[in-house]
Amino acid sequence: KGLINYTAKDSTFSVKFAPRIQARFNSNWDYNGEDYDDAELNFLIRRARLKFSGFAYSPKLKYKIELGLSNRDVSGANDFNRNTPRYILDAVIMWNFYENFELWAGQTKLPGNVERVVSSANLQLIDRSLLNSSFNIDRDVGVQLRHFTHLGGDFIMKEKLAISQGEGRNVTEGNEGGLQYTGRLEFLPFGNFKSKGDYSQGDLKREDTPKLMVGLTYDYNQDAVKTRSNLGSYMELEDGSLYETNITTFFADAMFKYKGFAFMGEYANRDADAPVAINADGTETGDIVRVGDAFNTQISYLFQSNYELTTRYTSLKFDNITGREAQNQYTLGASRYIVGHKLKIQADVSYSTLGGEADNIMLRTGFDLHF
Amino acid sequence: KGLINYTAKDSTFSVKFAPRIQARFNSNWDYNGEDYDDAELNFLIRRARLKFSGFAYSPKLKYKIELGLSNRDVSGANDFNRNTPRYILDAVIMWNFYENFELWAGQTKLPGNVERVVSSANLQLIDRSLLNSSFNIDRDVGVQLRHFTHLGGDFIMKEKLAISQGEGRNVTEGNEGGLQYTGRLEFLPFGNFKSKGDYSQGDLKREDTPKLMVGLTYDYNQDAVKTRSNLGSYMELEDGSLYETNITTFFADAMFKYKGFAFMGEYANRDADAPVAINADGTETGDIVRVGDAFNTQISYLFQSNYELTTRYTSLKFDNITGREAQNQYTLGASRYIVGHKLKIQADVSYSTLGGEADNIMLRTGFDLHF
Amino acid sequence: KGLINYTAKDSTFSVKFAPRIQARFNSNWDYNGEDYDDAELNFLIRRARLKFSGFAYSPKLKYKIELGLSNRDVSGANDFNRNTPRYILDAVIMWNFYENFELWAGQTKLPGNVERVVSSANLQLIDRSLLNSSFNIDRDVGVQLRHFTHLGGDFIMKEKLAISQGEGRNVTEGNEGGLQYTGRLEFLPFGNFKSKGDYSQGDLKREDTPKLMVGLTYDYNQDAVKTRSNLGSYMELEDGSLYETNITTFFADAMFKYKGFAFMGEYANRDADAPVAINADGTETGDIVRVGDAFNTQISYLFQSNYELTTRYTSLKFDNITGREAQNQYTLGASRYIVGHKLKIQADVSYSTLGGEADNIMLRTGFDLHF
Repeated sequence: KGLINYTAKDSTFSVKFAPRIQARFNSNWDYNGEDYDDAELNFLIRRARLKFSGFAYSPKLKYKIELGLSNRDVSGANDFNRNTPRYILDAVIMWNFYENFELWAGQTKLPGNVERVVSSANLQLIDRSLLNSSFNIDRDVGVQLRHFTHLGGDFIMKEKLAISQGEGRNVTEGNEGGLQYTGRLEFLPFGNFKSKGDYSQGDLKREDTPKLMVGLTYDYNQDAVKTRSNLGSYMELEDGSLYETNITTFFADAMFKYKGFAFMGEYANRDADAPVAINADGTETGDIVRVGDAFNTQISYLFQSNYELTTRYTSLKFDNITGREAQNQYTLGASRYIVGHKLKIQADVSYSTLGGEADNIMLRTGFDLHF
Repeated sequence: KGLINYTAKDSTFSVKFAPRIQARFNSNWDYNGEDYDDAELNFLIRRARLKFSGFAYSPKLKYKIELGLSNRDVSGANDFNRNTPRYILDAVIMWNFYENFELWAGQTKLPGNVERVVSSANLQLIDRSLLNSSFNIDRDVGVQLRHFTHLGGDFIMKEKLAISQGEGRNVTEGNEGGLQYTGRLEFLPFGNFKSKGDYSQGDLKREDTPKLMVGLTYDYNQDAVKTRSNLGSYMELEDGSLYETNITTFFADAMFKYKGFAFMGEYANRDADAPVAINADGTETGDIVRVGDAFNTQISYLFQSNYELTTRYTSLKFDNITGREAQNQYTLGASRYIVGHKLKIQADVSYSTLGGEADNIMLRTGFDLHF
Repeated sequence: KGLINYTAKDSTFSVKFAPRIQARFNSNWDYNGEDYDDAELNFLIRRARLKFSGFAYSPKLKYKIELGLSNRDVSGANDFNRNTPRYILDAVIMWNFYENFELWAGQTKLPGNVERVVSSANLQLIDRSLLNSSFNIDRDVGVQLRHFTHLGGDFIMKEKLAISQGEGRNVTEGNEGGLQYTGRLEFLPFGNFKSKGDYSQGDLKREDTPKLMVGLTYDYNQDAVKTRSNLGSYMELEDGSLYETNITTFFADAMFKYKGFAFMGEYANRDADAPVAINADGTETGDIVRVGDAFNTQISYLFQSNYELTTRYTSLKFDNITGREAQNQYTLGASRYIVGHKLKIQADVSYSTLGGEADNIMLRTGFDLHF
């Protein structure tokens, strides 16, 4: 695994280097109320990444550095990161300091919804769902404490706690508002999946016995300053300062796999103490925390030929205060895994509604090459 | 070749990693009508690149990722790439799916003029010609079909077809206007050059027998929105939309090498259906497609000492409608190849005229280090 | 040393690849005249770098490429670098062309104050001093000539000369004003330090015999256009051109190490012919060259347990004309070197005064991982 995968002869360190490309050729037809418009095409290198991982000085001290190079990955320059592109995705060390405990420090994904934490290298459709776009809690800088417990038989429980800055990745100018606190509990009643399959989509390992992971995440972003907790826009006030409100995000999700069949389901809910940003004089700024809830489920079957069919249904409802209409999306996808997730060709077609009306049809094709 | 050059023991992949630096120390004297002004100096890292290439899972599936890191390479942030720097030069897979056929997909150079497709690592002067600056069709995202035919004896014909988005590299926001279609035919009557010498300048391999490549490219960019086909500025209209016109670019070029002597010649022509961009109300926006034609020729001889002398003559004529005057440039260059193109020191001096009048004198020196 | 450290079997080149991460968790309390404000937190990836170095084609020709990827490293887009991020820190070749002589060409650090030239990987406190922030001469593009002389016994003298563009790293648009000339002399009366310890902080090698390096740098930036010689802001005039004045910077510094004890001291002085930038009509633009002088000293002891205590005292005085008040900073730091500078955990606390009044207290913690 990895393009370079090396362990020093004296076992003082190891390194795995894994580049990744994802090319996408998408077509989109918007519904104008009477008819579908002409196709809008979009050919792009969606992701181009370099990942370095391994252990340093002791197998108990692991590290991960992941760099994003595509224009979409690096976008997001603003006053809080010195108006610079954002290459660094992960830069984290993971220290197994005692028995089942690990301490993580640096920038990496928070223990949020399973769909988000699954690497973009291991998706079974062309991209993640709309639930994820609106509700995920992404990456942040801080520390995490991770532990797992054997509950008897194969039953495993995993506990993940994080304290982080609360404004997402690649901030240089310091913390705004309060910190972000995340807790996640995962239950694996039938033991671990093969090859960390709880965090990879599709049952590529064709589990012999049923495997299940059920997870619950509770996230509290104190005095949050962005519209989607640690993501979205900064809520700027007239006087140049930032609007602050406590935002909570809750996820319940599950991954199930058995003999080529895979199910992933997620529920997300976001709430805020005072979701509508207001200036000191009480006038609204126009920024509103994206509060609401959403449901996403996807079911797939992997044929012996390594073709996979996947269906996905996603439903989002936002609180009226947001002025955002409900969205539904129905997706049917096919993947041909040539070398598992490392070399695959994918296509999917989605039909979306907005406020109950037809909105658009999207056809996407792409290939992935990683090592 | 390459700083790292590794094939997995089980032959499932290979990787060649090749960094590259080009430093430049240039002086420029502008002619002010009566005299030459004081020298303007420019010391810079012109290119700093990382290239990964090899095969993945089968020798029939090759990949190439090339990243540009110098400030000139990454410049070009705009609304169509999320205002981000442009690191990715190439991210492409090349699949030899059947006999002499290859399918390419991703972002890479289009099969345009030979001078452009020669890697910047393999130039015999400090930089490419003015013909190339004004007329080349660079890189784009899309697919290419490539094939070669043995015509009898050593005679080889290569056919290259591309369909691409038509706005150049690193676009994230989708296609504007129509697609771009490129076809190129190459004739090699005396067989292949040594070490792919048809796409490397200077006869460093000192061909024992004459070698010739003659190429013809026809490129049609339907509803193009930029002033130089898929390069140049976006032609924006008052209403925020883009002006669209069909642009055709034609190249005829040749490379010849024999016993240290090398010749490269190119002719380029660009035409557009309606080159002057106009708003809906008929007023001109100021953007004009750079239509015209150009000729470039360079001749070199490599001495036994691995010193090379090169002369270049470039002539550009633009259609009157562009308001651009004719340019001529005469260049004399010397290269000392210490380890072929991988470690070389170069210098060249150019005299340019604009509209028939003296314009400037430019002295450039530099070194290249690549692996 | 290095994550990858490879010499080709035919000894035609070598490469060392060394990634680096530095994470920082800082707190800052500003003094508001009566009391300290609430803590401002700042969690960030301060540095994330990739370094390639080795020799090419002959051990006499060395190269170094260092790339900065953190948002702080890449910041600094402006009109003189095509408004692009600045990844390239070093891109330089070093050629030992004759006996004790080396010729350097490309972009790298100038031979300035020792604190600056010590790699950020080898610092004993969380970051460099305020002297360095205000007075260092950083990196530039140009050439350097380096030589060393055996003066008898162990006594070594090193001579370093540089000619560079004078506006710092990653400029693409050419030289402004005149060139920058730097000369540095170093005296090592007791011979070389172990493992290049004169350019690494803390006596991690526990020198058996006293080792001393005393250095003197004189830097003349002719017609400089930035407020801190080749760093700081461009001094723009109303008419769009740049204000130019000759700036000199002088450093005297010393490094001493013996049995775990280390001392580093520096004095810096900056002067300018006409430090206040004025327009053609004599009005002041607001830009003023940061003229003044400063003193920095740090003393440390490394215990057998590889814990180190460091104290630092920094004092800056600016000429009245600058309108900047004097700064003093007292720092106490502790480092735990797990694998030397390569894996360390650090903390420091600083008390600062501005114009003689309490200004702030800063607590910083962080870890470094490099290879």
